[in-house]
Amino acid sequence: MPTDNGPPRGTRDLLPDAVAKREAVIAELAASYARFGFRRIETPALEDISRLSWGEGGDNEKLIYRILRRGLDPVVAEGAELSDLTDLGLRYDLTVPLTRFYANNAGKLASPFRAMQIGSVWRAERPQKGRYRQFTQCDIDTIGEPTVLAECELLEATLAALQAIGIAPVRLRVNDRRLLAAIVVEAGVPHDSIGSFLVTLDKLDKIGWDGVKVELTERGYGEEVGERCEWVVGVLTPDDSPAVVLDRAADLLPGVPEAVLEDLRATFEALEQMARDTGSTESAPGSEGGARRGAGTSWSLDPTIVRGMGYYSGQIFEFGHPDAPSSIAGGGRYDGLVGRSLGRDVPACGVSIGFDRVVDMASFERPDLGVAVVYSGLPIADVLAVARRLRSSGSDRAAALVARRGQLKLQLDALKQEGYSSFILAEVNSVSEERPLRD
Amino acid sequence: MPTDNGPPRGTRDLLPDAVAKREAVIAELAASYARFGFRRIETPALEDISRLSWGEGGDNEKLIYRILRRGLDPVVAEGAELSDLTDLGLRYDLTVPLTRFYANNAGKLASPFRAMQIGSVWRAERPQKGRYRQFTQCDIDTIGEPTVLAECELLEATLAALQAIGIAPVRLRVNDRRLLAAIVVEAGVPHDSIGSFLVTLDKLDKIGWDGVKVELTERGYGEEVGERCEWVVGVLTPDDSPAVVLDRAADLLPGVPEAVLEDLRATFEALEQMARDTGSTESAPGSEGGARRGAGTSWSLDPTIVRGMGYYSGQIFEFGHPDAPSSIAGGGRYDGLVGRSLGRDVPACGVSIGFDRVVDMASFERPDLGVAVVYSGLPIADVLAVARRLRSSGSDRAAALVARRGQLKLQLDALKQEGYSSFILAEVNSVSEERPLRD
Repeated sequence: MPTDNGPPRGTRDLLPDAVAKREAVIAELAASYARFGFRRIETPALEDISRLSWGEGGDNEKLIYRILRRGLDPVVAEGAELSDLTDLGLRYDLTVPLTRFYANNAGKLASPFRAMQIGSVWRAERPQKGRYRQFTQCDIDTIGEPTVLAECELLEATLAALQAIGIAPVRLRVNDRRLLAAIVVEAGVPHDSIGSFLVTLDKLDKIGWDGVKVELTERGYGEEVGERCEWVVGVLTPDDSPAVVLDRAADLLPGVPEAVLEDLRATFEALEQMARDTGSTESAPGSEGGARRGAGTSWSLDPTIVRGMGYYSGQIFEFGHPDAPSSIAGGGRYDGLVGRSLGRDVPACGVSIGFDRVVDMASFERPDLGVAVVYSGLPIADVLAVARRLRSSGSDRAAALVARRGQLKLQLDALKQEGYSSFILAEVNSVSEERPLRD
Repeated sequence: MPTDNGPPRGTRDLLPDAVAKREAVIAELAASYARFGFRRIETPALEDISRLSWGEGGDNEKLIYRILRRGLDPVVAEGAELSDLTDLGLRYDLTVPLTRFYANNAGKLASPFRAMQIGSVWRAERPQKGRYRQFTQCDIDTIGEPTVLAECELLEATLAALQAIGIAPVRLRVNDRRLLAAIVVEAGVPHDSIGSFLVTLDKLDKIGWDGVKVELTERGYGEEVGERCEWVVGVLTPDDSPAVVLDRAADLLPGVPEAVLEDLRATFEALEQMARDTGSTESAPGSEGGARRGAGTSWSLDPTIVRGMGYYSGQIFEFGHPDAPSSIAGGGRYDGLVGRSLGRDVPACGVSIGFDRVVDMASFERPDLGVAVVYSGLPIADVLAVARRLRSSGSDRAAALVARRGQLKLQLDALKQEGYSSFILAEVNSVSEERPLRD
């Protein structure tokens, strides 16, 4: 018999009030996404370990929970390697399963296919405050749409979903991996080192330019590479309006294709139009250009956004909130990834909300638990009948049976606290009127 | 790169229409249970392997997906035992996690605590038609209620939930482990062999009395034990009304405590009263007594119901449906189980719906996907604006963008097929009125 009744390290039990809020927020997000045509799918929690560790999962591949093969001998054969003992793993994100799902079911899916996934993922991370080893992701992805329409729609849908759960203001930062590549090349990094260079640049938020430059020098880049990179990024400052930054990028970076700049312009134009259509457009205070705002949202082109995963191929996004230390959602285009499963390239783009981060910030009205039927002395069949009558009187009425005990006032206070809005006393020969529970 | 894009053996991908139905059925079940005061909780998918294999999981313990410890050397040490390599496992039911949850959080929970759980469980069963290695259970449990009120309420709530999702007729069979024990003792089985005897009796549905008697003889019981057991069960035939069967049991089985019979009478009386209150009471056709019916439900006392798990301590239940080869729900009282975690006994009783079995039988109206905006030639910002106007015109209006392609009639037919109810043609210089999509 185990002596500790806590859940496994790094995981959580969710109590009724917490689940009620989570379910309500999930329902809001799902309804909001459904209005854009995204449809929920589900994949199993388990995937083949070879797929999970195929090199597209970045650091997450080190954090896989691996499942022991079934039917092995109880004593391990001499010289056995750990990798021979496992065949499945728990998914660490919803993107790898989605690409397999699409490859497996493409013939039965609309094109473009707008997928919504809300589900648990598992990562064996070192437990720390606010981070869990099982957590929930809420993803939308558009598969089969090559144009920037996909990006525009995903951004609008995500902003609408965050608004639906009361999260404001949202700060959206947009970048493009191809713009980023041009910056890096401009800074003097060879083409085949772009990926590893970005691993360092991705730490800019945490370690600043000084830290980035030290790490670059340690990794054998000349000092001028870091300096030059900082200078280019400084010229393309997100404090200016996206249109201005894009014009500068066109001048400064001969390596960036015009189509990339056009797509970025289209994305920002769509955001502007959305803000006009949904009202409450306002200029960012204190700047002529700068971050653009609409309906509690601001956006900018931020050339320092990297996003960890290696598979991004085009525009990338991060959504932030003043109260959240890290991003609350993120995503981008990953045109090559589906092809790795399907065998032919299919364009794809998606955004993932870190559900456990946003749920704490979401607005939520605690549900009314209905009527508490406080009973004593009555036969069971009669007690049940009292609650049954209450439930059948209104279509959605909830009524719960509670045995009478202790001081009545204390018991009623506790019921109010629990979430009941009214009560009935059901005693021998007397069933009271329903009365409200007051504070 | 994996070559097969199917999900792992024995698991499934769920496509949009399937998920839409599942989510709708879950919402109905959850709303119905909530009206009885059951509140959703969640526990992690992973539990300590020592807890999962503590001997209360029956055969399920052989089917645990075991998780490899993190941080092990890539080459396994000589002579290592497989059991040393794992520390966690995937839950195979929701009852073991619930007892841990209760022990861990009892101080923060109402008493009695009415728990609702809807979640995935995993069993490494031999894959076969209609059985999956990841499937969903929908459980309600009342913890802390010692009286048969818990049983009555759980049965009523389950019947109401099944009715809410359109599953009828439901056939409920009730038994009590203590009545079963008295029958077995009456048949000549020693007290300490009751459990193992029940393992054989549990196969009655599949192998019949002849099979049961052969197996009993093989296991060293005298032939007269099987004969006697069959005779006692024959006297207590579920074709008679529960009241008649209970009276016979009182005469025939001196070993069964009067309180057990009283509680069973109370359960059946509560079912009768429920049927009267909710209307449509009818006698079972062709019999004076027999199975009792109300609102599409019939019930009986069936002394052959065993339920596999060792932990049941009182009344046990099975819910069946004519179209389902095995039970669609089941449960019972397990007063000793919570105590194994908590250290003090707390009465508990629960019912689990096999969600994947009932969802196929549930009634469901396919959701309207709303308006398809079929666009061509327009700038992206304009296309997005058309859909945006539609979504903002009604509170829950869905509008999805679809690029115009191929023959219009064929495309509209496909959209109708997919679930859209109307369409708009958005072309250069002309955005059509919204028109219904017809068959």
